[in-house]
Amino acid sequence: MTYTLVLLRHGESDWNAKNLFTGWVDVALTEKGEGEAVRGGQLLREADVLPDVVHTSLQRRAINTAALALDAADRHWIPVKRSWRLNERHYGALQGKDKKQTLDEYGEEQFMLWRRSFDTPPPPLDDSDEFSQAGDPRYADLGDELPRTECLKDVIARFLPYWESDIVTDLKDGKTVLVAAHGNSLRALVKHLDQISDEDIAGLNIPTGMPLVYELDEDLRPTVAGGRYLDPEAAAAAAAAVANQGR
Amino acid sequence: MTYTLVLLRHGESDWNAKNLFTGWVDVALTEKGEGEAVRGGQLLREADVLPDVVHTSLQRRAINTAALALDAADRHWIPVKRSWRLNERHYGALQGKDKKQTLDEYGEEQFMLWRRSFDTPPPPLDDSDEFSQAGDPRYADLGDELPRTECLKDVIARFLPYWESDIVTDLKDGKTVLVAAHGNSLRALVKHLDQISDEDIAGLNIPTGMPLVYELDEDLRPTVAGGRYLDPEAAAAAAAAVANQGR
Repeated sequence: MTYTLVLLRHGESDWNAKNLFTGWVDVALTEKGEGEAVRGGQLLREADVLPDVVHTSLQRRAINTAALALDAADRHWIPVKRSWRLNERHYGALQGKDKKQTLDEYGEEQFMLWRRSFDTPPPPLDDSDEFSQAGDPRYADLGDELPRTECLKDVIARFLPYWESDIVTDLKDGKTVLVAAHGNSLRALVKHLDQISDEDIAGLNIPTGMPLVYELDEDLRPTVAGGRYLDPEAAAAAAAAVANQGR
Repeated sequence: MTYTLVLLRHGESDWNAKNLFTGWVDVALTEKGEGEAVRGGQLLREADVLPDVVHTSLQRRAINTAALALDAADRHWIPVKRSWRLNERHYGALQGKDKKQTLDEYGEEQFMLWRRSFDTPPPPLDDSDEFSQAGDPRYADLGDELPRTECLKDVIARFLPYWESDIVTDLKDGKTVLVAAHGNSLRALVKHLDQISDEDIAGLNIPTGMPLVYELDEDLRPTVAGGRYLDPEAAAAAAAAVANQGR
């Protein structure tokens, strides 16, 4: 008896294409990103990995990726659950900044610290900033929990309670679960599943629009470390491209 | 204190455009239908009628209409609930048949009886028919409840339990509720809300992609009979076109 978990990072967004730090800014998919989502759904159908329930963040690029992929897999009708706990890492004061420009301005060391440090968040984003979510109705219930910046450690801390309360519950009901989310919320989950160290997680990149399937044993440990991509060659090429962002 | 309920019939589907009886066949929206859904969402935003939760059928044309409209209204992140009880009327053996051809073959009286009789369903659809839903996994839990044909009376009988258990509960929580569904499941609801007689409901047509807003009092009675369309002129023209289908 194993449980089946499918992770899907949203397709390319407007700000992926423009090489801007996005975080909680609610940008749309590009046409290419929509195509990636559809292709992801086709891969699910071809592999006969058919989700029974989908969990998404509250962000458009993950929500629409899930919708397009599930439509292509003929699973558009399954139950949907959404939570801010699946959102991308809040990028603090970097939200809306150009990645290349930030690299040039602050240098390699500071740039990589902000991008990949486990426990050092960027400076917080001011509530009056045009890219702040302080007045966004979808987060009105969060109160003091609303982040102004996050490091990966913070993402893990707010993601894992939802993993335990909602996703694990669905898995233990025997459901094939699709999690449609973001580069860093999925890195948080993969770190937890594969018990990756705080240092090694810096080197792990998740490509957009590529279904990553984990079979989990009764203790929710992966039967194959790192899971398996349904299109492994395309995934390897895409992950390399993510690692080089800002160059 | 009033409750706000918004009804939205899906945009034009492939089979609306081809003038075929659709029922439970899971056809897609046309490009025009997608545009109607987006326009519906823009109307919601312009009128500041912002749903807090959406209920859809299990059918692609309603699911995608809801997604497109909510995205356009910047409410894509709200909770989603789906139920087969919001599905279109099952059209029985007419599913997949040409409306004009059916009119010519069976004559005006029989045609209108099938389309608009309150309590006479078309002949049942055989489980072996290519347009049957007998093997569809999304309805696997229905067992004997799976319809093979329905009249409007049948639709009311399976819709109202969900209205009471799920939609009314959300309304009484103070939520603005969007119901994204179908011509006949929405006629069933409007008949109930406006207490329309079994005879008069035959003359009521709901246009595609036009948000219809009901303010309900504490007894869930409309404060204005028939609600109000956010774009009344376009709605009147579109409803007239629906009434003439098959001509």
